[in-house]
Amino acid sequence: MSTSRDVVVTYIRGMADTQSNGTPPSARTTVHRGAKRADYEPEKVMAILRAGSVAHVAVSTGDGPIVLPMVYGIANNQMYLHGALANGLLKAGTSQDICAAVTIVDGLVLAKTPFNHSMNYRSVVVRGTARLVSNEAEILVALRAITDHIVPTWDITRPVSASEIRATRVVALQLDEMSAKIRTGGPINVAEDADENYWCGVVPLVTRFESPIANADSVGEVPAEVRGLVGEDLHSFRGR
Amino acid sequence: MSTSRDVVVTYIRGMADTQSNGTPPSARTTVHRGAKRADYEPEKVMAILRAGSVAHVAVSTGDGPIVLPMVYGIANNQMYLHGALANGLLKAGTSQDICAAVTIVDGLVLAKTPFNHSMNYRSVVVRGTARLVSNEAEILVALRAITDHIVPTWDITRPVSASEIRATRVVALQLDEMSAKIRTGGPINVAEDADENYWCGVVPLVTRFESPIANADSVGEVPAEVRGLVGEDLHSFRGR
Repeated sequence: MSTSRDVVVTYIRGMADTQSNGTPPSARTTVHRGAKRADYEPEKVMAILRAGSVAHVAVSTGDGPIVLPMVYGIANNQMYLHGALANGLLKAGTSQDICAAVTIVDGLVLAKTPFNHSMNYRSVVVRGTARLVSNEAEILVALRAITDHIVPTWDITRPVSASEIRATRVVALQLDEMSAKIRTGGPINVAEDADENYWCGVVPLVTRFESPIANADSVGEVPAEVRGLVGEDLHSFRGR
Repeated sequence: MSTSRDVVVTYIRGMADTQSNGTPPSARTTVHRGAKRADYEPEKVMAILRAGSVAHVAVSTGDGPIVLPMVYGIANNQMYLHGALANGLLKAGTSQDICAAVTIVDGLVLAKTPFNHSMNYRSVVVRGTARLVSNEAEILVALRAITDHIVPTWDITRPVSASEIRATRVVALQLDEMSAKIRTGGPINVAEDADENYWCGVVPLVTRFESPIANADSVGEVPAEVRGLVGEDLHSFRGR
Protein backbone atom coordinates (compact mmCIF):
# COMPACT_ATOMS: atom_id res chain seq x y z
CA MET A 1 0.00 0.00 0.00
CA SER A 2 1.33 3.36 -0.88
CA THR A 3 0.71 6.60 -2.63
CA SER A 4 3.66 5.54 -4.77
CA ARG A 5 3.12 3.27 -7.74
CA ASP A 6 5.41 0.51 -6.71
CA VAL A 7 3.68 -0.66 -3.59
CA VAL A 8 -0.06 -0.47 -4.23
CA VAL A 9 0.08 -3.46 -6.47
CA THR A 10 1.53 -6.17 -4.41
CA TYR A 11 -0.67 -9.16 -4.25
CA ILE A 12 -2.92 -9.35 -7.24
CA ARG A 13 -1.24 -12.29 -8.90
CA GLY A 14 -1.08 -14.20 -5.65
CA MET A 15 0.87 -14.95 -2.55
CA ALA A 16 3.53 -17.44 -1.65
CA ASP A 17 2.75 -20.62 0.18
CA THR A 18 4.39 -20.56 3.61
CA GLN A 19 5.47 -24.13 2.95
CA SER A 20 7.49 -22.93 0.01
CA ASN A 21 11.24 -22.66 0.33
CA GLY A 22 11.36 -19.71 -2.01
CA THR A 23 9.87 -21.14 -5.16
CA PRO A 24 6.23 -20.12 -5.30
CA PRO A 25 4.12 -23.19 -6.11
CA SER A 26 1.91 -21.52 -8.72
CA ALA A 27 1.27 -18.34 -10.65
CA ARG A 28 -1.30 -17.40 -8.04
CA THR A 29 1.29 -17.64 -5.31
CA THR A 30 3.89 -15.34 -6.83
CA VAL A 31 4.32 -11.74 -5.80
CA HIS A 32 4.95 -9.95 -9.10
CA ARG A 33 5.07 -6.34 -8.01
CA GLY A 34 6.96 -4.77 -5.12
CA ALA A 35 8.61 -8.15 -4.59
CA LYS A 36 11.45 -6.63 -2.56
CA ARG A 37 8.90 -5.85 0.15
CA ALA A 38 7.34 -9.31 0.14
CA ASP A 39 7.96 -11.72 2.96
CA TYR A 40 6.90 -15.35 3.16
CA GLU A 41 8.56 -16.19 6.47
CA PRO A 42 5.73 -17.60 8.62
CA GLU A 43 6.90 -15.97 11.85
CA LYS A 44 6.91 -12.47 10.35
CA VAL A 45 3.50 -13.04 8.81
CA MET A 46 2.11 -14.36 12.10
CA ALA A 47 3.50 -11.39 14.05
CA ILE A 48 1.47 -9.05 11.83
CA LEU A 49 -1.67 -11.16 12.19
CA ARG A 50 -1.25 -11.08 15.98
CA ALA A 51 -0.70 -7.31 15.98
CA GLY A 52 -3.63 -6.49 13.68
CA SER A 53 -7.10 -5.63 14.90
CA VAL A 54 -9.46 -6.10 11.97
CA ALA A 55 -9.43 -8.24 8.80
CA HIS A 56 -11.05 -7.09 5.59
CA VAL A 57 -12.62 -10.23 4.14
CA ALA A 58 -13.60 -10.51 0.48
CA VAL A 59 -15.87 -12.99 -1.26
CA SER A 60 -16.95 -13.19 -4.88
CA THR A 61 -20.71 -13.32 -5.36
CA GLY A 62 -22.86 -13.58 -8.47
CA ASP A 63 -23.49 -9.92 -7.86
CA GLY A 64 -19.85 -8.79 -7.72
CA PRO A 65 -17.20 -8.90 -5.01
CA ILE A 66 -17.93 -7.84 -1.43
CA VAL A 67 -15.41 -6.84 1.20
CA LEU A 68 -16.34 -6.29 4.84
CA PRO A 69 -14.38 -5.58 8.02
CA MET A 70 -14.48 -8.40 10.58
CA VAL A 71 -12.81 -9.16 13.87
CA TYR A 72 -10.77 -12.34 13.85
CA GLY A 73 -8.81 -14.72 16.00
CA ILE A 74 -5.71 -16.82 15.32
CA ALA A 75 -5.25 -20.37 16.64
CA ASN A 76 -4.11 -23.75 15.31
CA ASN A 77 -2.79 -22.21 12.09
CA GLN A 78 -6.28 -20.89 11.28
CA MET A 79 -7.80 -17.45 11.00
CA TYR A 80 -11.21 -17.71 12.65
CA LEU A 81 -14.12 -15.47 11.67
CA HIS A 82 -17.61 -15.45 13.13
CA GLY A 83 -21.06 -14.04 12.62
CA ALA A 84 -24.73 -14.77 13.09
CA LEU A 85 -26.16 -17.85 11.40
CA ALA A 86 -27.76 -15.50 8.85
CA ASN A 87 -24.45 -13.73 8.14
CA GLY A 88 -24.52 -13.32 4.38
CA LEU A 89 -20.78 -12.96 3.82
CA LEU A 90 -19.96 -16.07 5.83
CA LYS A 91 -22.78 -18.01 4.15
CA ALA A 92 -21.63 -16.91 0.69
CA GLY A 93 -18.02 -17.64 1.52
CA THR A 94 -18.34 -21.10 3.08
CA SER A 95 -16.56 -23.73 0.97
CA GLN A 96 -15.62 -20.93 -1.45
CA ASP A 97 -12.38 -19.07 -2.08
CA ILE A 98 -12.11 -16.03 0.16
CA CYS A 99 -9.36 -13.49 0.75
CA ALA A 100 -8.54 -11.68 4.00
CA ALA A 101 -6.27 -8.64 4.37
CA VAL A 102 -4.88 -7.34 7.67
CA THR A 103 -3.28 -3.89 7.43
CA ILE A 104 -1.46 -1.76 10.00
CA VAL A 105 -0.54 1.79 8.94
CA ASP A 106 2.61 2.94 10.74
CA GLY A 107 3.20 6.33 9.17
CA LEU A 108 3.06 8.75 6.28
CA VAL A 109 6.14 8.84 4.05
CA LEU A 110 6.42 12.29 2.47
CA ALA A 111 8.90 12.66 -0.37
CA LYS A 112 10.03 15.68 -2.38
CA THR A 113 7.34 14.93 -4.96
CA PRO A 114 3.96 13.22 -4.48
CA PHE A 115 5.00 10.56 -6.98
CA ASN A 116 7.48 9.26 -4.37
CA HIS A 117 5.16 9.58 -1.37
CA SER A 118 4.40 6.31 0.36
CA MET A 119 3.24 4.85 3.66
CA ASN A 120 4.98 2.74 6.22
CA TYR A 121 2.83 -0.28 6.89
CA ARG A 122 2.61 -3.94 7.80
CA SER A 123 0.22 -5.94 5.67
CA VAL A 124 -0.79 -9.58 5.29
CA VAL A 125 -3.02 -11.16 2.65
CA VAL A 126 -4.40 -14.66 3.15
CA ARG A 127 -6.20 -16.69 0.49
CA GLY A 128 -7.97 -20.00 0.85
CA THR A 129 -11.24 -21.87 1.04
CA ALA A 130 -13.47 -20.91 3.95
CA ARG A 131 -14.37 -23.95 6.07
CA LEU A 132 -17.51 -24.04 8.24
CA VAL A 133 -16.51 -25.08 11.76
CA SER A 134 -19.04 -27.54 13.17
CA ASN A 135 -17.07 -29.36 15.86
CA GLU A 136 -18.03 -27.88 19.22
CA ALA A 137 -14.54 -28.08 20.68
CA GLU A 138 -13.12 -26.18 17.72
CA ILE A 139 -15.95 -23.64 17.91
CA LEU A 140 -14.94 -22.89 21.49
CA VAL A 141 -11.27 -22.58 20.51
CA ALA A 142 -12.30 -20.17 17.76
CA LEU A 143 -14.58 -18.01 19.92
CA ARG A 144 -11.94 -17.78 22.61
CA ALA A 145 -9.29 -16.80 20.04
CA ILE A 146 -11.55 -14.10 18.61
CA THR A 147 -12.52 -12.81 22.08
CA ASP A 148 -8.95 -12.71 23.34
CA HIS A 149 -7.35 -11.39 20.16
CA ILE A 150 -6.95 -7.76 21.27
CA VAL A 151 -7.57 -7.98 25.01
CA PRO A 152 -8.06 -11.30 26.79
CA THR A 153 -11.51 -11.22 28.42
CA TRP A 154 -12.74 -14.78 27.86
CA ASP A 155 -11.70 -15.78 31.38
CA ILE A 156 -13.02 -12.66 33.12
CA THR A 157 -16.54 -12.53 31.67
CA ARG A 158 -19.71 -14.60 32.00
CA PRO A 159 -19.16 -17.85 30.02
CA VAL A 160 -20.98 -18.07 26.71
CA SER A 161 -24.10 -20.22 26.82
CA ALA A 162 -25.03 -23.18 24.62
CA SER A 163 -27.74 -21.13 22.90
CA GLU A 164 -25.32 -18.27 22.23
CA ILE A 165 -22.91 -20.74 20.62
CA ARG A 166 -25.73 -22.26 18.53
CA ALA A 167 -26.61 -18.79 17.24
CA THR A 168 -23.07 -18.23 15.94
CA ARG A 169 -21.53 -19.25 12.64
CA VAL A 170 -17.78 -19.86 12.82
CA VAL A 171 -15.63 -20.09 9.72
CA ALA A 172 -11.95 -21.04 9.46
CA LEU A 173 -9.37 -19.95 6.89
CA GLN A 174 -6.21 -22.04 6.94
CA LEU A 175 -3.04 -19.93 7.21
CA ASP A 176 -1.16 -21.62 4.39
CA GLU A 177 -1.39 -19.40 1.35
CA MET A 178 -0.35 -15.99 2.57
CA SER A 179 2.32 -13.35 2.41
CA ALA A 180 3.29 -10.16 4.16
CA LYS A 181 4.49 -6.85 2.87
CA ILE A 182 6.26 -4.43 5.16
CA ARG A 183 7.57 -0.94 4.47
CA THR A 184 9.72 0.97 6.95
CA GLY A 185 12.03 3.98 6.77
CA GLY A 186 12.10 7.30 5.02
CA PRO A 187 11.09 8.41 1.54
CA ILE A 188 13.18 7.38 -1.46
CA ASN A 189 13.62 10.40 -3.66
CA VAL A 190 14.80 10.19 -7.24
CA ALA A 191 18.35 11.34 -7.89
CA GLU A 192 17.11 14.39 -9.81
CA ASP A 193 15.43 15.65 -6.62
CA ALA A 194 18.60 15.52 -4.48
CA ASP A 195 19.09 19.27 -4.51
CA GLU A 196 15.43 20.18 -4.61
CA ASN A 197 14.62 22.52 -1.76
CA TYR A 198 11.82 20.55 -0.07
CA TRP A 199 11.37 19.03 3.36
CA CYS A 200 10.86 15.28 3.30
CA GLY A 201 10.54 12.61 5.96
CA VAL A 202 8.19 10.36 7.92
CA VAL A 203 5.21 11.22 10.12
CA PRO A 204 4.64 8.22 12.41
CA LEU A 205 1.09 7.14 13.26
CA VAL A 206 0.31 5.25 16.46
CA THR A 207 -3.04 3.93 17.68
CA ARG A 208 -3.32 3.88 21.47
CA PHE A 209 -5.87 2.67 24.00
CA GLU A 210 -7.38 5.53 26.01
CA SER A 211 -8.90 5.40 29.51
CA PRO A 212 -11.79 2.93 29.82
CA ILE A 213 -15.32 4.28 30.29
CA ALA A 214 -17.48 2.11 32.56
CA ASN A 215 -21.03 1.28 31.50
CA ALA A 216 -23.99 2.27 33.73
CA ASP A 217 -24.62 -1.41 34.56
CA SER A 218 -20.95 -2.21 35.18
CA VAL A 219 -20.06 -3.83 38.51
CA GLY A 220 -16.71 -3.54 40.27
CA GLU A 221 -13.32 -2.16 39.37
CA VAL A 222 -11.76 -2.03 35.92
CA PRO A 223 -10.02 -5.43 35.50
CA ALA A 224 -6.23 -5.43 35.39
CA GLU A 225 -6.39 -6.77 31.80
CA VAL A 226 -8.23 -3.62 30.72
CA ARG A 227 -6.49 -1.10 33.04
CA GLY A 228 -3.13 -2.23 31.68
CA LEU A 229 -4.09 -1.19 28.15
CA VAL A 230 -4.17 2.55 28.75
CA GLY A 231 -1.51 4.32 26.68
CA GLU A 232 -0.43 1.08 24.98
CA ASP A 233 0.06 0.86 21.22
CA LEU A 234 -2.78 -1.28 19.83
CA HIS A 235 -0.52 -2.70 17.16
CA SER A 236 2.44 -3.63 19.30
CA PHE A 237 0.56 -4.91 22.35
CA ARG A 238 1.31 -8.58 22.84
CA GLY A 239 -0.97 -9.81 25.60
CA ARG A 240 -2.62 -12.23 23.24
CA MET B 1 -17.97 -5.12 12.40
CA SER B 2 -18.03 -6.53 15.84
CA THR B 3 -17.18 -9.46 17.99
CA SER B 4 -20.96 -9.69 18.44
CA ARG B 5 -23.08 -11.52 15.89
CA ASP B 6 -25.37 -8.73 14.93
CA VAL B 7 -22.90 -6.35 13.39
CA VAL B 8 -20.42 -8.43 11.44
CA VAL B 9 -22.91 -9.13 8.75
CA THR B 10 -23.98 -5.82 7.46
CA TYR B 11 -23.42 -5.45 3.80
CA ILE B 12 -23.41 -8.77 2.07
CA ARG B 13 -26.75 -8.39 0.35
CA GLY B 14 -25.92 -4.90 -0.81
CA MET B 15 -25.98 -1.24 -0.06
CA ALA B 16 -28.47 1.52 -0.58
CA ASP B 17 -28.20 3.94 -3.42
CA THR B 18 -27.62 7.42 -2.09
CA GLN B 19 -30.29 8.61 -4.52
CA SER B 20 -32.82 6.48 -2.71
CA ASN B 21 -35.32 8.11 -0.40
CA GLY B 22 -35.44 5.10 1.84
CA THR B 23 -36.57 2.39 -0.53
CA PRO B 24 -33.54 0.44 -1.68
CA PRO B 25 -33.67 0.09 -5.46
CA SER B 26 -32.72 -3.60 -5.58
CA ALA B 27 -31.96 -6.67 -3.52
CA ARG B 28 -28.28 -5.81 -3.81
CA THR B 29 -28.89 -2.40 -2.30
CA THR B 30 -30.69 -3.53 0.82
CA VAL B 31 -28.98 -3.84 4.19
CA HIS B 32 -30.51 -7.01 5.65
CA ARG B 33 -28.56 -7.38 8.88
CA GLY B 34 -27.80 -4.80 11.51
CA ALA B 35 -30.08 -2.43 9.63
CA LYS B 36 -30.50 -0.16 12.65
CA ARG B 37 -26.84 0.79 12.25
CA ALA B 38 -27.09 1.43 8.52
CA ASP B 39 -27.00 4.95 7.18
CA TYR B 40 -27.54 6.05 3.61
CA GLU B 41 -27.35 9.81 4.19
CA PRO B 42 -24.69 11.03 1.74
CA GLU B 43 -23.18 13.59 4.10
CA LYS B 44 -22.57 11.02 6.84
CA VAL B 45 -21.07 8.59 4.36
CA MET B 46 -18.82 11.28 2.90
CA ALA B 47 -17.63 12.35 6.36
CA ILE B 48 -16.36 8.81 6.97
CA LEU B 49 -14.68 8.66 3.56
CA ARG B 50 -12.94 11.97 4.31
CA ALA B 51 -11.83 10.77 7.75
CA GLY B 52 -10.56 7.36 6.61
CA SER B 53 -6.97 6.69 5.64
CA VAL B 54 -6.96 3.46 3.61
CA ALA B 55 -9.53 1.63 1.47
CA HIS B 56 -9.59 -2.15 1.18
CA VAL B 57 -10.44 -2.80 -2.45
CA ALA B 58 -11.79 -6.16 -3.64
CA VAL B 59 -12.00 -7.60 -7.13
CA SER B 60 -13.22 -10.99 -8.31
CA THR B 61 -10.73 -12.84 -10.51
CA GLY B 62 -10.93 -16.20 -12.21
CA ASP B 63 -8.65 -17.31 -9.43
CA GLY B 64 -10.81 -16.16 -6.53
CA PRO B 65 -11.39 -12.80 -4.87
CA ILE B 66 -8.50 -10.50 -3.96
CA VAL B 67 -8.58 -7.65 -1.45
CA LEU B 68 -5.73 -5.18 -1.07
CA PRO B 69 -5.20 -2.01 0.96
CA MET B 70 -4.89 1.15 -1.13
CA VAL B 71 -4.68 4.86 -0.50
CA TYR B 72 -7.47 6.85 -2.07
CA GLY B 73 -8.75 10.33 -2.76
CA ILE B 74 -12.27 11.78 -2.95
CA ALA B 75 -13.33 14.39 -5.51
CA ASN B 76 -16.23 14.99 -7.90
CA ASN B 77 -18.32 12.25 -6.29
CA GLN B 78 -15.62 9.69 -7.15
CA MET B 79 -13.27 7.56 -5.10
CA TYR B 80 -9.93 7.69 -6.95
CA LEU B 81 -7.40 4.86 -6.75
CA HIS B 82 -4.01 4.67 -8.42
CA GLY B 83 -1.15 2.35 -9.14
CA ALA B 84 1.55 1.54 -11.65
CA LEU B 85 0.48 0.70 -15.18
CA ALA B 86 1.25 -2.94 -14.39
CA ASN B 87 -0.88 -2.88 -11.21
CA GLY B 88 -2.69 -6.21 -11.36
CA LEU B 89 -5.61 -5.32 -9.15
CA LEU B 90 -6.41 -2.14 -11.05
CA LYS B 91 -5.99 -3.94 -14.40
CA ALA B 92 -8.23 -6.79 -13.28
CA GLY B 93 -10.78 -4.38 -11.84
CA THR B 94 -11.09 -1.91 -14.71
CA SER B 95 -14.59 -1.99 -16.22
CA GLN B 96 -15.48 -4.69 -13.69
CA ASP B 97 -17.48 -4.63 -10.45
CA ILE B 98 -15.26 -3.77 -7.51
CA CYS B 99 -15.97 -3.12 -3.84
CA ALA B 100 -14.14 -0.74 -1.51
CA ALA B 101 -14.41 -0.67 2.29
CA VAL B 102 -13.17 2.16 4.52
CA THR B 103 -13.12 1.32 8.22
CA ILE B 104 -12.23 3.38 11.28
CA VAL B 105 -12.08 1.55 14.61
CA ASP B 106 -13.00 3.89 17.48
CA GLY B 107 -12.93 1.55 20.45
CA LEU B 108 -13.41 -1.83 22.04
CA VAL B 109 -16.85 -2.50 23.51
CA LEU B 110 -16.53 -4.99 26.36
CA ALA B 111 -19.76 -6.53 27.66
CA LYS B 112 -20.48 -8.89 30.55
CA THR B 113 -20.15 -11.84 28.19
CA PRO B 114 -18.06 -12.16 25.01
CA PHE B 115 -21.23 -12.83 23.04
CA ASN B 116 -22.20 -9.17 23.58
CA HIS B 117 -18.73 -7.71 22.96
CA SER B 118 -18.54 -5.34 20.04
CA MET B 119 -16.49 -2.51 18.58
CA ASN B 120 -17.26 1.13 18.04
CA TYR B 121 -16.51 1.97 14.45
CA ARG B 122 -17.32 4.02 11.37
CA SER B 123 -17.47 2.02 8.18
CA VAL B 124 -18.37 2.63 4.54
CA VAL B 125 -18.76 0.13 1.72
CA VAL B 126 -18.88 1.32 -1.89
CA ARG B 127 -19.75 -0.87 -4.87
CA GLY B 128 -19.56 -0.05 -8.53
CA THR B 129 -17.79 -0.50 -11.82
CA ALA B 130 -14.19 0.68 -11.87
CA ARG B 131 -13.58 3.23 -14.63
CA LEU B 132 -10.14 3.84 -16.13
CA VAL B 133 -9.41 7.57 -16.05
CA SER B 134 -7.76 8.65 -19.30
CA ASN B 135 -8.54 12.36 -19.44
CA GLU B 136 -5.42 14.26 -18.32
CA ALA B 137 -7.31 16.96 -16.44
CA GLU B 138 -9.20 14.32 -14.45
CA ILE B 139 -5.97 12.41 -13.81
CA LEU B 140 -4.52 15.53 -12.22
CA VAL B 141 -7.65 16.06 -10.12
CA ALA B 142 -7.39 12.44 -8.98
CA LEU B 143 -3.67 12.52 -8.13
CA ARG B 144 -4.12 15.74 -6.20
CA ALA B 145 -7.08 14.29 -4.26
CA ILE B 146 -5.07 11.18 -3.40
CA THR B 147 -1.96 13.21 -2.42
CA ASP B 148 -3.92 15.66 -0.28
CA HIS B 149 -6.29 13.15 1.29
CA ILE B 150 -4.54 12.86 4.67
CA VAL B 151 -2.18 15.84 4.61
CA PRO B 152 -2.19 18.39 1.78
CA THR B 153 1.27 18.33 0.21
CA TRP B 154 0.48 18.72 -3.50
CA ASP B 155 1.18 22.45 -3.36
CA ILE B 156 4.34 22.21 -1.24
CA THR B 157 6.24 19.54 -3.21
CA ARG B 158 7.95 19.33 -6.60
CA PRO B 159 5.18 19.11 -9.25
CA VAL B 160 4.70 15.69 -10.81
CA SER B 161 6.21 15.33 -14.26
CA ALA B 162 4.55 14.22 -17.47
CA SER B 163 6.46 10.92 -17.42
CA GLU B 164 5.44 10.26 -13.81
CA ILE B 165 1.81 10.81 -14.80
CA ARG B 166 2.18 8.50 -17.82
CA ALA B 167 3.53 5.76 -15.52
CA THR B 168 0.44 5.90 -13.33
CA ARG B 169 -2.88 4.13 -13.74
CA VAL B 170 -5.81 5.99 -12.22
CA VAL B 171 -9.16 4.35 -11.64
CA ALA B 172 -12.41 5.94 -10.49
CA LEU B 173 -15.26 4.42 -8.51
CA GLN B 174 -18.44 6.51 -8.57
CA LEU B 175 -19.83 7.21 -5.08
CA ASP B 176 -23.40 6.23 -5.82
CA GLU B 177 -23.95 2.75 -4.47
CA MET B 178 -22.71 2.92 -0.91
CA SER B 179 -23.74 2.87 2.71
CA ALA B 180 -22.25 3.54 6.10
CA LYS B 181 -22.51 1.71 9.38
CA ILE B 182 -21.64 3.44 12.61
CA ARG B 183 -21.59 2.08 16.14
CA THR B 184 -21.11 4.30 19.18
CA GLY B 185 -21.75 3.95 22.91
CA GLY B 186 -21.39 1.27 25.54
CA PRO B 187 -22.08 -2.46 25.49
CA ILE B 188 -25.65 -3.75 25.39
CA ASN B 189 -25.93 -6.55 27.90
CA VAL B 190 -28.82 -9.00 27.92
CA ALA B 191 -31.36 -8.54 30.71
CA GLU B 192 -30.24 -11.79 32.38
CA ASP B 193 -26.78 -10.26 32.92
CA ALA B 194 -28.04 -7.15 34.74
CA ASP B 195 -26.94 -8.39 38.15
CA GLU B 196 -23.89 -10.28 36.95
CA ASN B 197 -20.83 -9.11 38.80
CA TYR B 198 -18.64 -8.06 35.86
CA TRP B 199 -17.08 -4.79 34.77
CA CYS B 200 -18.20 -3.63 31.34
CA GLY B 201 -17.60 -0.54 29.23
CA VAL B 202 -15.71 1.00 26.35
CA VAL B 203 -11.97 1.32 25.73
CA PRO B 204 -11.51 4.14 23.19
CA LEU B 205 -8.85 3.82 20.49
CA VAL B 206 -7.31 6.89 18.86
CA THR B 207 -4.69 7.06 16.11
CA ARG B 208 -2.48 10.15 16.38
CA PHE B 209 0.29 11.71 14.32
CA GLU B 210 3.62 11.71 16.13
CA SER B 211 6.58 14.07 15.63
CA PRO B 212 7.91 14.12 12.06
CA ILE B 213 11.34 12.59 11.37
CA ALA B 214 13.27 14.44 8.66
CA ASN B 215 15.02 12.44 5.94
CA ALA B 216 18.79 12.76 5.46
CA ASP B 217 18.24 14.58 2.16
CA SER B 218 15.53 16.86 3.51
CA VAL B 219 16.00 20.59 3.02
CA GLY B 220 14.57 23.31 5.25
CA GLU B 221 12.10 23.40 8.12
CA VAL B 222 9.15 21.08 8.65
CA PRO B 223 6.28 22.69 6.69
CA ALA B 224 3.40 24.11 8.71
CA GLU B 225 1.06 21.56 7.07
CA VAL B 226 3.11 18.74 8.60
CA ARG B 227 4.06 20.40 11.89
CA GLY B 228 0.40 21.05 12.62
CA LEU B 229 -0.38 17.34 12.54
CA VAL B 230 1.51 16.40 15.70
CA GLY B 231 -0.86 15.06 18.33
CA GLU B 232 -3.86 15.28 16.01
CA ASP B 233 -6.34 12.42 15.64
CA LEU B 234 -5.82 10.92 12.16
CA HIS B 235 -9.49 10.10 11.86
CA SER B 236 -10.94 13.42 12.94
CA PHE B 237 -8.45 15.69 11.21
CA ARG B 238 -10.26 17.79 8.62
CA GLY B 239 -7.61 19.66 6.70
CA ARG B 240 -8.58 17.94 3.49
